[in-house]
Amino acid sequence: MRVLSAAIGAVLATATLLAPSAAAQRETRIPESAIATASQLREAALASDLGYRVTESLTTEVGPRMAGSDGDARAVAWAQAKFRELGYDKVWVEPVTFPKWERRAEHAQVLGAHAQPLALTALGGSPGGTVEAEVVRFADLAALEAAPPGSLAGKIAFVDYRMERARDGSGYGPGSRVRSRAPSVAITKGAIGFLMRSAGTDSHRQPHTGITRFDDGLTPIPSAALSVPDAAQLTRLLQRGPQQVRMSLDCGWTGTATSYNVIGEIRGSKRPNEVVLIGGHLDSWDLGTGAVDDGAGVGLTMAAGALIGQLPKAPARTVRVVAFANEEQGLYGGKAYAQQHAKALRQHQLAAESDFGAGRIYAYSSSAPAYAQRADRQIAEVLAPLGIAHVPGEGGPGPDISPFAADGLAWARLAQDGSDYFDLHHTPDDTFDKIDPQALAQNVAAYAVFAYLAAQAEGDFGSAPKEAKTTD
Amino acid sequence: MRVLSAAIGAVLATATLLAPSAAAQRETRIPESAIATASQLREAALASDLGYRVTESLTTEVGPRMAGSDGDARAVAWAQAKFRELGYDKVWVEPVTFPKWERRAEHAQVLGAHAQPLALTALGGSPGGTVEAEVVRFADLAALEAAPPGSLAGKIAFVDYRMERARDGSGYGPGSRVRSRAPSVAITKGAIGFLMRSAGTDSHRQPHTGITRFDDGLTPIPSAALSVPDAAQLTRLLQRGPQQVRMSLDCGWTGTATSYNVIGEIRGSKRPNEVVLIGGHLDSWDLGTGAVDDGAGVGLTMAAGALIGQLPKAPARTVRVVAFANEEQGLYGGKAYAQQHAKALRQHQLAAESDFGAGRIYAYSSSAPAYAQRADRQIAEVLAPLGIAHVPGEGGPGPDISPFAADGLAWARLAQDGSDYFDLHHTPDDTFDKIDPQALAQNVAAYAVFAYLAAQAEGDFGSAPKEAKTTD
Repeated sequence: MRVLSAAIGAVLATATLLAPSAAAQRETRIPESAIATASQLREAALASDLGYRVTESLTTEVGPRMAGSDGDARAVAWAQAKFRELGYDKVWVEPVTFPKWERRAEHAQVLGAHAQPLALTALGGSPGGTVEAEVVRFADLAALEAAPPGSLAGKIAFVDYRMERARDGSGYGPGSRVRSRAPSVAITKGAIGFLMRSAGTDSHRQPHTGITRFDDGLTPIPSAALSVPDAAQLTRLLQRGPQQVRMSLDCGWTGTATSYNVIGEIRGSKRPNEVVLIGGHLDSWDLGTGAVDDGAGVGLTMAAGALIGQLPKAPARTVRVVAFANEEQGLYGGKAYAQQHAKALRQHQLAAESDFGAGRIYAYSSSAPAYAQRADRQIAEVLAPLGIAHVPGEGGPGPDISPFAADGLAWARLAQDGSDYFDLHHTPDDTFDKIDPQALAQNVAAYAVFAYLAAQAEGDFGSAPKEAKTTD
Repeated sequence: MRVLSAAIGAVLATATLLAPSAAAQRETRIPESAIATASQLREAALASDLGYRVTESLTTEVGPRMAGSDGDARAVAWAQAKFRELGYDKVWVEPVTFPKWERRAEHAQVLGAHAQPLALTALGGSPGGTVEAEVVRFADLAALEAAPPGSLAGKIAFVDYRMERARDGSGYGPGSRVRSRAPSVAITKGAIGFLMRSAGTDSHRQPHTGITRFDDGLTPIPSAALSVPDAAQLTRLLQRGPQQVRMSLDCGWTGTATSYNVIGEIRGSKRPNEVVLIGGHLDSWDLGTGAVDDGAGVGLTMAAGALIGQLPKAPARTVRVVAFANEEQGLYGGKAYAQQHAKALRQHQLAAESDFGAGRIYAYSSSAPAYAQRADRQIAEVLAPLGIAHVPGEGGPGPDISPFAADGLAWARLAQDGSDYFDLHHTPDDTFDKIDPQALAQNVAAYAVFAYLAAQAEGDFGSAPKEAKTTD
């Protein structure tokens, strides 16, 4: 299906080059002069360390910035100041309100003959509390689901699912599903505590946090992730016989907080009300300094916008960079943005978010309809020298633009190599030293090219409210 | 010098093959039948997972076992039971008494505009206490030493020395020298707290502990190591201006403890009072489960001895395996052994300790005098198929046999590839999952060959009290 659509698009595009037709009148295309400028922009971005410096600034000066924390507030101030320092034409904030969760302390140990500490971290959303109970291990979520009701009464459920490494991060789906679903399943079986092997691909004693949710009507239980080596250790101990574990979590929900989507714009020269949106999310988990998740995304898109702003002539449309609030605990910033800009959906021409680390981009795709596929290919052609393949029909929108995309926003995806991403994701190890400056510059170059060309395109990329959307 | 000595040895050995002489009467040699048996033993050990299983048992069932802790006491019980389970002929313990140090809790954070936590761990021997002060950075120990007296009054000294990676661990000398020397130097400059970049080669947020000492007459100050990423972060912050740090260590000396060297023997068939000694140290730091430091050394030497014990006929001499107490805090077990066995020094034919991780052995050498170099080469020839080079004159004795070696004990060195050792050493990450079973089996094979052949040699390897020692 996808291949067929692309082929039809190619035929249409080729046809329009030879003989303008009715279809051609609607075709989105990018002027040749813009292609030349974009190529120069690409090379300038590759030679620039701006994205690296902006990421260094955020992760060093602010550090951890969990939604609603003091660090988060400092990040909002930092982002506004940084946009201004980088020469953005307009900088503002939009409020985002959400429940606030705090982590204060966490400890666990095996008790008895093999007494020893376990490295763990509370899942976001977990209640606090101390549980001391026997551990029952399950190889995966399905095994837990198959446990008879009541069979875990008074026990700690332990799901030992091992997440797979993959360039596109596809192992994270089943890994994070354990985190989001298994605590509720465990409660229905009678469990009083929940442990999981971290949804991660490393072998360090750095547990991976991340949000979980409890189904309505259930009483939440203390829920935490063991580091991968600790999960393996507990499994080895369980092979020797029953094990008692004490887990103590001091954490929980503490009311409501307000943070902000921080927005900077490079104003369009011809159609300033039409917007190409790029960005990342400003919040991080508390354990690390949020370098690959998502300081890099913020830093590289801020730098890409700034480099566009330094061009002799601004593109036709406005390039808007959004540092989204509280992605980690439920896409609060992305949802708020979609709501606050719902009436301006058609003005948002195309959007792309960077939220998958700091690895090189290897593929480009978008939701462009057939009449915009020529422009999409033009973008892909300028990206190609960066080692980026055009893969029409693949992928989907980044997390914070997905609520707006669900309403009809056109999206693009610049797919990063995430092979190592889940070694660091949501752990204390997510720190600036893990970022490769050359890979980050390649990302800046790709986002600069993408945003500039989308902002120079004549014709749209298909953004329209879902109910009004044409399928072409 | 070393090359010359080896050459002379070779000439002597060759000469004795052709024409027995007065020198030949003293030459140590290994019977051909023993060579054949050792080759079979080598292949059997390579095919065995015994060393891996013993290491798994210690690191899983006991886990962390800092000297004087409950875990240490459990390790002593474990080692006795394991020696018996493995069929050793004789198993006993020898007491080792030392001051006991405890770690209870540790926290640090940058204060002020860039407030954020820092991952650190107290150095062994540090007093507890909370210090809140400005940090002054030094690139290395020499820079700290060059600071004027009094210049650090009321400050925290921070030595940011970066340890180098090396197969033979040679980067650890200057790295650990910062740990052992710099706190005392900092005190003499007026510092009230001490921080160092961990003596490690990794880039994870796992600080490296290790013992430090304060010079007599100085009042010890809270002293800790930052993880490598945290040291880099603090350095980046200091580039922006002065930084205040609060470090809180709850730790310290708590009296005297007694642990035990645990010893197992495969009794010699002809000269049971003559001993070939191999071993590792039983204690670990508290942060990890002591897999590469030194569960592997204990596991692989226990396994090597057990495989020798399973041979149809025991070697002429006794093979003694020692799991030394409290290596980490000052070679207490090794010193106690040297003292307790001082009168039996001559009966100790040759000794080798494994305490450098679980990497493959790549080189063999010993302190064999010229008259024992033929036997030394015979051992090296049976080790060669394991990828082990003979490097006469290189290296020195392992830590726990070094006090006895200083008194005159003959030693051998089976040099392990330590390229990755200081990624894990003294950190929470020193866990069983880091051990490669094939590499460990190669180690077991090498120690089994070495101990068996040394136990079968006719003639000695030069052990003698220093004052009585002949230089040949």
